[in-house]
Amino acid sequence: MTAPVLEETYGDKIKARREHIKMDRAAFAAALGKPTQDIEALEENKGAPLTLDTLTAIAGVLGTSLAELTPEFVSDLDDGVSYQLPQDNPIIKGLRAGTNYYTYHCLVRTRTVPKLVPLLLEVNVDDPDAAAFNVGHDAHEVIYCMEGDIHFKWGDPANPREVILPQGSSFYISPGVPHTLTTTKGSGPGKVISINF
Amino acid sequence: MTAPVLEETYGDKIKARREHIKMDRAAFAAALGKPTQDIEALEENKGAPLTLDTLTAIAGVLGTSLAELTPEFVSDLDDGVSYQLPQDNPIIKGLRAGTNYYTYHCLVRTRTVPKLVPLLLEVNVDDPDAAAFNVGHDAHEVIYCMEGDIHFKWGDPANPREVILPQGSSFYISPGVPHTLTTTKGSGPGKVISINF
Amino acid sequence: MTAPVLEETYGDKIKARREHIKMDRAAFAAALGKPTQDIEALEENKGAPLTLDTLTAIAGVLGTSLAELTPEFVSDLDDGVSYQLPQDNPIIKGLRAGTNYYTYHCLVRTRTVPKLVPLLLEVNVDDPDAAAFNVGHDAHEVIYCMEGDIHFKWGDPANPREVILPQGSSFYISPGVPHTLTTTKGSGPGKVISINF
Amino acid sequence: MTAPVLEETYGDKIKARREHIKMDRAAFAAALGKPTQDIEALEENKGAPLTLDTLTAIAGVLGTSLAELTPEFVSDLDDGVSYQLPQDNPIIKGLRAGTNYYTYHCLVRTRTVPKLVPLLLEVNVDDPDAAAFNVGHDAHEVIYCMEGDIHFKWGDPANPREVILPQGSSFYISPGVPHTLTTTKGSGPGKVISINF
Ligand SMILES: [Zn+2]
Ligand SMILES: [Zn+2]
Ligand SMILES: [Zn+2]
Ligand SMILES: [Zn+2]
Repeated sequence: MTAPVLEETYGDKIKARREHIKMDRAAFAAALGKPTQDIEALEENKGAPLTLDTLTAIAGVLGTSLAELTPEFVSDLDDGVSYQLPQDNPIIKGLRAGTNYYTYHCLVRTRTVPKLVPLLLEVNVDDPDAAAFNVGHDAHEVIYCMEGDIHFKWGDPANPREVILPQGSSFYISPGVPHTLTTTKGSGPGKVISINF
Repeated sequence: MTAPVLEETYGDKIKARREHIKMDRAAFAAALGKPTQDIEALEENKGAPLTLDTLTAIAGVLGTSLAELTPEFVSDLDDGVSYQLPQDNPIIKGLRAGTNYYTYHCLVRTRTVPKLVPLLLEVNVDDPDAAAFNVGHDAHEVIYCMEGDIHFKWGDPANPREVILPQGSSFYISPGVPHTLTTTKGSGPGKVISINF
Repeated sequence: MTAPVLEETYGDKIKARREHIKMDRAAFAAALGKPTQDIEALEENKGAPLTLDTLTAIAGVLGTSLAELTPEFVSDLDDGVSYQLPQDNPIIKGLRAGTNYYTYHCLVRTRTVPKLVPLLLEVNVDDPDAAAFNVGHDAHEVIYCMEGDIHFKWGDPANPREVILPQGSSFYISPGVPHTLTTTKGSGPGKVISINF
Repeated sequence: MTAPVLEETYGDKIKARREHIKMDRAAFAAALGKPTQDIEALEENKGAPLTLDTLTAIAGVLGTSLAELTPEFVSDLDDGVSYQLPQDNPIIKGLRAGTNYYTYHCLVRTRTVPKLVPLLLEVNVDDPDAAAFNVGHDAHEVIYCMEGDIHFKWGDPANPREVILPQGSSFYISPGVPHTLTTTKGSGPGKVISINF
């Protein structure tokens, strides 16, 4: 897969930051221990390719984060939309507690909303006593119970809250809250739509 | 339905803002055209109930927005989670172009994430030529095609983009992009999960 | 002082939120325990003036915060700028530890940036042993020492960090860090510019 | 100057993102065209140093921005504070319209608040007719007039707003608004404190 295209150049981002803090090229070059013509080349996107080490030193000298100096990619949306056919869904086995706990069907994503991770989850374990918790996500999560009855546990794994949610139920999980899903005992597998954002 | 409980009092929010701008009670009272003891009562949550007009005048004097002075509600989550059984889903007819275009089944929501509006949509119109656009949403939207093949149009209603998405497809719509869903011609109704956030 | 003008109406904000969650007027009216024509009047900004209690109940029913329903004020900027002459600076005595610890000259503010509180501070206490801490601010603070040498303490009041900063020095204080300024012992009063943002 | 220390490793950030999108190491390796043991080495911060090109390809495969994969630096604050003595202020000549328009004395900055750029500005041009506009800043700006009377222009350079602000005045400039300062005609140089945030 070819790398996606950047919206701006590193040279532009670096120059914009340098000017924002009223630093001239001579002072910038001196602080980096480089000749001034190297700085010209850098900001005009010529010369030797930028290394991660140099970018880190530059962020230090310009008093900002690496994130502030890294350009965005051009959007991967098509007039504001992205779609994905089911045959193109990546399928991942989610191993937990030594078993194929969930099977993840990864739905459409977009670089413009990195936190958005929509999934169709096959819930493969039909024994709530065999439930295995995660540590919670660094994102919100909303779930729709598409097939089967879901036995949902959340909170402190040593003393969890729990509820049985029949097909058609929906639930929201706050960031950082540990949780786990199985189907009800002996009821076979289930399916949920899980949207993380 | 009883009003939910506020996390703080208006008196606390007003006093915090007044102190933040280093204004004393006498100056505050004078600017509002009220006696100083009224301000004491206000900040201690005694005295006459606060009116919207007074709160607006206060925001003006304290140089801030009404939003900055309004307290939050206590969370409606249950140890970080909220769930909803299908029989409790409000069902709303979505009228558009003079027909029952969509039927919305409203899934779980939480006050802690006001922009989150998860829905199960019945797509009732099976004629793409009868498609009627919205103006787009002030939110992101991700859709999973649960039943039926969806004929999806987006962009400029006069010259839209379009695609037919079979059952199991998923798509993302950026904020502000007009769009509309029908099922494919003559194929009967369909169902999608639509998560706005 | 007359209350500033709102950019939108409450009716518009309420209607936008109701539509966002796909709730129709009948369901909204029922949940509020009001007749449907009251809701029409409300959303069209006619009828009885809105009370804070009703707005609170509405926020509850519409599953959002009061802040989300309160309109913004029109900008108080003049082609993007606001200025203030020194004779218009409000002057506030800052009482702390029973003395006139600071005298605050309040510089220009703007409703568009509520957290911005620029001040000229007269530092009146010239005895570091008489220093009295605040609890820190819910904002960033940057200080320029205009006149006099400043004895600056910060951190844990029981065991503070401290430094003497001569005229021309500058310092930054992170949100929530307790601090206090006096001038150096017996040196008379000082003056700093303090920008909270 | 030595590069500042990172709070996390690239391996940690990459692994966290890969797991967030439910991608396993084999799929990740395949998408990058690398052997799986290279991915193990990468995520455990062993093996060959990461290049900017590889990081860009990784961001593409993991559907996120470079900024999301770059770690933060450890804070440069000292118990929440940073200070700077006047002799350590970098001094930069601001060339504009072929003259030494401003002299910038750069005050304290902190990596934790990259947008904060506090300055003491010497305003060297005392002829409003020789005023030269900038294009505005990607930041808020508040100014205190410390010495001299400032002739301030803003808005459209072809048809600007203007005002004379005596010593002790203060003004706020919204992001993106072009502006320029001189002192009043023939009055010699002036000094302002300018805080960009
Ligand atoms: Zn989860
Ligand atoms: Zn939509
Ligand atoms: Zn302070
Ligand atoms: Zn400026």
